[in-house]
Amino acid sequence: MIKLDAINALDRAGFVARLGNIYEHAPWVAEAAHSFGPFSTVAALFAALVQAVCNASDAQRLALIAGHPELGDKLALAKPLTTESQSEQQGAGLDQLSGAEFDIFTRLNRAYRDKFTFPFIICVRRHSKDSILAGFQKRLEHDRETEIQAALAEIDRIAALRIGGLVAGDATLKLDGQVSTHVLDTHGGTPAVGVAISLHELSRLAPPRLIARSLSNADGRTDAPLIAGKPVPIGQYEMRFEMGPYFAARGIASAKPPFLETVPVRFGVADPEAHYHVPLLVTPWSYTTYRGR
Amino acid sequence: MIKLDAINALDRAGFVARLGNIYEHAPWVAEAAHSFGPFSTVAALFAALVQAVCNASDAQRLALIAGHPELGDKLALAKPLTTESQSEQQGAGLDQLSGAEFDIFTRLNRAYRDKFTFPFIICVRRHSKDSILAGFQKRLEHDRETEIQAALAEIDRIAALRIGGLVAGDATLKLDGQVSTHVLDTHGGTPAVGVAISLHELSRLAPPRLIARSLSNADGRTDAPLIAGKPVPIGQYEMRFEMGPYFAARGIASAKPPFLETVPVRFGVADPEAHYHVPLLVTPWSYTTYRGR
Amino acid sequence: MIKLDAINALDRAGFVARLGNIYEHAPWVAEAAHSFGPFSTVAALFAALVQAVCNASDAQRLALIAGHPELGDKLALAKPLTTESQSEQQGAGLDQLSGAEFDIFTRLNRAYRDKFTFPFIICVRRHSKDSILAGFQKRLEHDRETEIQAALAEIDRIAALRIGGLVAGDATLKLDGQVSTHVLDTHGGTPAVGVAISLHELSRLAPPRLIARSLSNADGRTDAPLIAGKPVPIGQYEMRFEMGPYFAARGIASAKPPFLETVPVRFGVADPEAHYHVPLLVTPWSYTTYRGR
Amino acid sequence: MIKLDAINALDRAGFVARLGNIYEHAPWVAEAAHSFGPFSTVAALFAALVQAVCNASDAQRLALIAGHPELGDKLALAKPLTTESQSEQQGAGLDQLSGAEFDIFTRLNRAYRDKFTFPFIICVRRHSKDSILAGFQKRLEHDRETEIQAALAEIDRIAALRIGGLVAGDATLKLDGQVSTHVLDTHGGTPAVGVAISLHELSRLAPPRLIARSLSNADGRTDAPLIAGKPVPIGQYEMRFEMGPYFAARGIASAKPPFLETVPVRFGVADPEAHYHVPLLVTPWSYTTYRGR
Repeated sequence: MIKLDAINALDRAGFVARLGNIYEHAPWVAEAAHSFGPFSTVAALFAALVQAVCNASDAQRLALIAGHPELGDKLALAKPLTTESQSEQQGAGLDQLSGAEFDIFTRLNRAYRDKFTFPFIICVRRHSKDSILAGFQKRLEHDRETEIQAALAEIDRIAALRIGGLVAGDATLKLDGQVSTHVLDTHGGTPAVGVAISLHELSRLAPPRLIARSLSNADGRTDAPLIAGKPVPIGQYEMRFEMGPYFAARGIASAKPPFLETVPVRFGVADPEAHYHVPLLVTPWSYTTYRGR
Repeated sequence: MIKLDAINALDRAGFVARLGNIYEHAPWVAEAAHSFGPFSTVAALFAALVQAVCNASDAQRLALIAGHPELGDKLALAKPLTTESQSEQQGAGLDQLSGAEFDIFTRLNRAYRDKFTFPFIICVRRHSKDSILAGFQKRLEHDRETEIQAALAEIDRIAALRIGGLVAGDATLKLDGQVSTHVLDTHGGTPAVGVAISLHELSRLAPPRLIARSLSNADGRTDAPLIAGKPVPIGQYEMRFEMGPYFAARGIASAKPPFLETVPVRFGVADPEAHYHVPLLVTPWSYTTYRGR
Repeated sequence: MIKLDAINALDRAGFVARLGNIYEHAPWVAEAAHSFGPFSTVAALFAALVQAVCNASDAQRLALIAGHPELGDKLALAKPLTTESQSEQQGAGLDQLSGAEFDIFTRLNRAYRDKFTFPFIICVRRHSKDSILAGFQKRLEHDRETEIQAALAEIDRIAALRIGGLVAGDATLKLDGQVSTHVLDTHGGTPAVGVAISLHELSRLAPPRLIARSLSNADGRTDAPLIAGKPVPIGQYEMRFEMGPYFAARGIASAKPPFLETVPVRFGVADPEAHYHVPLLVTPWSYTTYRGR
Repeated sequence: MIKLDAINALDRAGFVARLGNIYEHAPWVAEAAHSFGPFSTVAALFAALVQAVCNASDAQRLALIAGHPELGDKLALAKPLTTESQSEQQGAGLDQLSGAEFDIFTRLNRAYRDKFTFPFIICVRRHSKDSILAGFQKRLEHDRETEIQAALAEIDRIAALRIGGLVAGDATLKLDGQVSTHVLDTHGGTPAVGVAISLHELSRLAPPRLIARSLSNADGRTDAPLIAGKPVPIGQYEMRFEMGPYFAARGIASAKPPFLETVPVRFGVADPEAHYHVPLLVTPWSYTTYRGR
């Protein structure tokens, strides 16, 4: 991480050397943004980059779009990807596609390029595989002008996350979401301590994928949120609470199998920068869950 | 179905012809029970059969046990199975085992027979594949005397269900359990009408298996219980409520994806003859479920 | 109760003798309605009476309105009240007014008569003291024509309830509401048996008034609904569940005082002919209540 | 407030001047405790005072008990009460007794003194009027030795609170409890903002007494807890949530009166130093409440 002050102290060449990769294969964006400095906040720095893209010609913007890699195209891995986009595509599991998934993505990529002549761009860190697919399907129906705007908006989102990961500053860029929980044992009237909790990403194409695993602490919360410090990918999730072992450890008699063993709570995330607090109020015979705060 | 009066009117030979298969390959049980008639209730008829087994010699009882087919042994399908036990074994999906499952069952069957010299007997209509496996593992630890008692108890349960299916009478044999639900829309303060509901049997060895599917009616209930008129197999279940389409149809604005789309409620059944009423009180942002009445 | 057939068999004079009091001091309504008979349902009989009022002249309708007693005017008790309206006014406690309440009612009665020249008419069996007061205040703002319609609508409601109490027939007149409950012990996973439950009518002017008292039975329900077989007066209610003694009797250790002792559930009734089912799902540390079915 | 360092810097005379009133009319306690100083924590200072009482003779301890004022005896107000005990007795409303209450307290005071020869002592800041009465009744059944111990325990509790109010230091004396809430609108999936909330102390002898009043903020919480910074008096409470105006302001159509207008949540406090977090999850048709964290 570089401090904002250090960024502000750079000359144009140093600035471009540092921030040239924020926009994929387009160091000219950083170069143009340098003139707007110095920047009082990270958000102001980001706004300058966005403005630089805005001030460019249509041809430059199309070139910016065209410079992005094909999404999920494994063959593309041989091409010169920036390190940033490589690690981003791993996030959504795009480098671990099954054969069937690979075929679907390849087909959609081709259809998209055939229609628009540029690659499909999406800020993958804000998405799950399923929501990328949904995005493909929806955006294929756009006309070209709408889709150029959509691609640029995604490029800006990618840039914002890259800046957030590079420049240490204030929290003026709101880039993070959160998934958290709280388990209350309403049989005993206490926080439920020591409950095994796991979070899984669901997919129509593939089995659930384990995202995080934790134990509830003395407050019935997890020591750290299940997801924090990054966007929560748009998608479907399932939180699982292992209540059977918890109530057994408390010595509460139950039949075999108990009425509640694993409690699954399935929920959708539509806003990657929001806080999804999903508590559980639970007895051996009942539970309540809700979107909380 | 035969009426109890008609059973009572039979002479010994007719009685044995009708009820000789109630105990597998052991018409002598019916023959001995005939002396206790006439029977005022179906439960009294059943008690007479149980008593006949009880009055028999140890050797006869062992022969009764030994006369039962190997459970889940596909090779056994070639052997002369009674029609009754054939259709019962289909219920738990024992005729649709995967290769891995088949290996496990075969290994357990062999271990059981090696230890006890008679086949493993369990009333499959009261069990899921998973609980049969759990039963195998637990009962393999028994000593021989305990296990003879366990086998006879299962044989009696099988006989009770066969009688219940054959003799029409009063409801003096309590053989049925029930799974039902009720969906209340606490956003609108009304029953939730037209919610798609499905019930799945879960298994550690295999994917969920669809058991029943229904739509909630004007009362928020299903027209018929999801399971009724038979034991509810011991096991793990998941009821799924398609709340996304329901709230969308009510015109309630929501993000994409909505917070709640499919609501899964997972519960264990330990008592096949009990009523498992599992209601859902639900808004687009919260729900409560419990074992009710 | 008279059977509808017996009503249909009456000649005009007999019909008027029987039904002349359905409309207060207005036997002419029954007389005119007789021509529409015979009646296939009680609802058809009622519709004929409503039609007869409708066919009358404005002067007749005004006389009908003017023939009603002042509401809650104790001095009026000396005047010739029909037996029907006497017992109805007792229902809402209008014969048990405190001095302050009496003053308020008297003032409103006078203001109403001064403005409209006829007495304030309301179907008291569908109202609590508080909702009668609210009705007074709202209807005092009407113009005369609106209020004549309002008075006639109330007169029809009074007539419907009188017919329902007099003529035995089908249930084609929907005149009854219901208040019921169901207590589930989600600590134990069973119905809560033996819980003392009481229902109170609340009032801004007076202390809560006990309406009904019951014990939950083996199903967690009361043997009879708390209110049934009549309209549920529009108003505010509080149902009270004595959970402290219940959980103590179950042997659940608790502090002194316990977290939950009496659980009050306060709810409003706006529709006297509706079913208000208000269940309680309760542990020693939590509860859920809702308008159910 | 005095800092602990300043206390430690005092000589014996100064120490007694400052802390002589911590134990009612018993400066000798402070005098004896001074020898144990200096004190590293406020808890250590308090422990020294307790130890000093412990080291005293039976006669001294009896004199300490006897030096306390009669509880709730208005006539006693003329006697030389320390300022500390005067303000403490106001807390529980003991200076605002009705005639009937005064009679009861006077009778119990007399019975207690007749039996034990010393006055009834209770740490009133940890109690409501009702729990003081309950304490009277229970402790009247004690034998004298048990009651001497009970009185000394209460005297220590009084002393702890006095020290906590006098000496600024760390939080090593755990003297405070808390009552707080959180309102979640599970109809809208958001915190319920702007809900009027009030907290009332209930009593068998008197009408509810308003303790605190607040509005929920943007998080659905109150800016400050409803009770904090002091013990929560043992007793019965009712929290009231004005949900009718809240849902009306959100534009949710409802009948008149709405199903939920004021939602009362009644709960008992048994542990004055505990945190009673009592959230509400609420729609216009349902709510859930529980003891949370």
